[in-house]
Amino acid sequence: MADGKEYFVGVDLGGTKILAAVFSPALKCLGKSKRSTKAERGAQAVIDRIARCVSDAVDECDLDLKLCRGVGIGAPGAVDFEAGKVVFAPNLDWKDLPLKKELEKRLEVPVFLDNDCNVCSLGVYEKELGAKPASMVGMFIGTGIGGGLVLEGKPYSGMSHTAGEIGHMVVQVDGPKCGCGRKGCLEAVASRTAMFKRLQTAVKDGEKTELTDIVGEDLSDLKSSHLRKALKRGDKLVKRTIEDAARYIGIGAANLINILNPEYVVLGGGVIDALEDEMFGAIVESAREHTFPGADRGLKIVASKLGDDAGITGAAVLARRCAK
Amino acid sequence: MADGKEYFVGVDLGGTKILAAVFSPALKCLGKSKRSTKAERGAQAVIDRIARCVSDAVDECDLDLKLCRGVGIGAPGAVDFEAGKVVFAPNLDWKDLPLKKELEKRLEVPVFLDNDCNVCSLGVYEKELGAKPASMVGMFIGTGIGGGLVLEGKPYSGMSHTAGEIGHMVVQVDGPKCGCGRKGCLEAVASRTAMFKRLQTAVKDGEKTELTDIVGEDLSDLKSSHLRKALKRGDKLVKRTIEDAARYIGIGAANLINILNPEYVVLGGGVIDALEDEMFGAIVESAREHTFPGADRGLKIVASKLGDDAGITGAAVLARRCAK
Repeated sequence: MADGKEYFVGVDLGGTKILAAVFSPALKCLGKSKRSTKAERGAQAVIDRIARCVSDAVDECDLDLKLCRGVGIGAPGAVDFEAGKVVFAPNLDWKDLPLKKELEKRLEVPVFLDNDCNVCSLGVYEKELGAKPASMVGMFIGTGIGGGLVLEGKPYSGMSHTAGEIGHMVVQVDGPKCGCGRKGCLEAVASRTAMFKRLQTAVKDGEKTELTDIVGEDLSDLKSSHLRKALKRGDKLVKRTIEDAARYIGIGAANLINILNPEYVVLGGGVIDALEDEMFGAIVESAREHTFPGADRGLKIVASKLGDDAGITGAAVLARRCAK
Repeated sequence: MADGKEYFVGVDLGGTKILAAVFSPALKCLGKSKRSTKAERGAQAVIDRIARCVSDAVDECDLDLKLCRGVGIGAPGAVDFEAGKVVFAPNLDWKDLPLKKELEKRLEVPVFLDNDCNVCSLGVYEKELGAKPASMVGMFIGTGIGGGLVLEGKPYSGMSHTAGEIGHMVVQVDGPKCGCGRKGCLEAVASRTAMFKRLQTAVKDGEKTELTDIVGEDLSDLKSSHLRKALKRGDKLVKRTIEDAARYIGIGAANLINILNPEYVVLGGGVIDALEDEMFGAIVESAREHTFPGADRGLKIVASKLGDDAGITGAAVLARRCAK
């Protein structure tokens, strides 16, 4: 580029870890860095850690931060894109934090901030789908469930930038209680948290499962990979739990398809990364079954292959879109 | 206008009646006409009736069809806007009907076709909201439940023009059976059909209601106005039925708010027209209660005052937008 500023940095800020990566304008990853978040040390300490993580990634590629055109960040929670503020991030215990300003002070590079699921969707849309489809709905299944929309070829985030809260769409009126305080949200029946809670309750109620053999009686250190292991041993409780979650995710997808008639639905997030083989088929089946006739004509439902890279890639795309 | 063609016609094609109206470019209604649909006589007969209804409305205003810039039509079902075809309209028993072409042959005026709920939303958006909000979700509650979206100031209809099928969003997994064949759709728990079915079942099960006094034992000729009458007499079954439907509609609205973060949610349709006083407050309360914190900041939930005119007005807006 004319001014010699030729790369972008994408940051994925999570509750437990920070990932930063340097990308070429063509979205080739040139180098990465990782650091724990340490949210308990307070916001200023976390912002320092983000800045250091960015510097480390840049240093890793033998580049100079002065040649960075922009840093994009995906943050977990409600984000005010225009103001560059994290409005509310329960995992970090942040409220109304001017992250853009604080980071620009430290890095002396333009910083752009968005919600993590919007950012992941943007990454999938540009890197995996080549920015070609007119519309895409991203569904990210992990500890919680979040989403991001691309409509008419552009990220869509609504009036106050909160669109895509698909995890809090009610699919089961008066269903299980959700972390948000309401009942029957998709997140309360189909997230990793929901699946683990159901398994823990079942074990307390005396149901048998291979999981107790794998991680111990109280299932407190459960991971998605353990579910896969138990499935391989023919565990019926785990099978049922995963199948039900997949069915619910498919119903959530169908609701989005019925409402938005998108060209693509892309599934991602930790649960899909870990259990794609076990869940994807059932999700698609349930989605097609619950879609209004005609609304899925030409629709493609795919699983993202970006895995952990969705956040950093999307954040770099955000910087590429926004940096002058 | 320069070529002297200075008015638009809007047509609301329903399963039982056809409404046509003439509008000035400023959307002043100049005259109307109404005719029964007589779907049982077959498609060609219905198209003839639409053409006659349009001619009658134009004649009513002492105008000449040659001076009409365009005719817009809202049709009940799946519509291929580009091809000008009604893809599927179960109420009319139509499949792949080239309505635009057939009507243009008869009227010799450009005809533009869209789904009835999209058209109603467009009418509300331009006539009632002055085309000002960046985004609006229209929810129309009648025999069924349909919706229409306006996003970034433009009607949004998705990849194959089926977006807005909000009545078939599942809100109660394994809930009551829906006309679409699936279970727990919003339409299956909150449409007029769903309310009437619940009341009829309750009466069969021996529950007491004023309705049997008002319309007779089998409740086969039930209308929304009867529910209002029964409510005024303090009917508890009717009260509970209406309250539950309102709660579900509010949950449906909240899902749309969580997903799309719109500036406006507009409620319309026969049920709202007839029972606004009884339902609107409960719908808003339920919507706010089920909305993710922050997603309803600045949101306005309103009831449309257009009533039966939403369809013809929106159809005229469609013609005004599309006619050269």
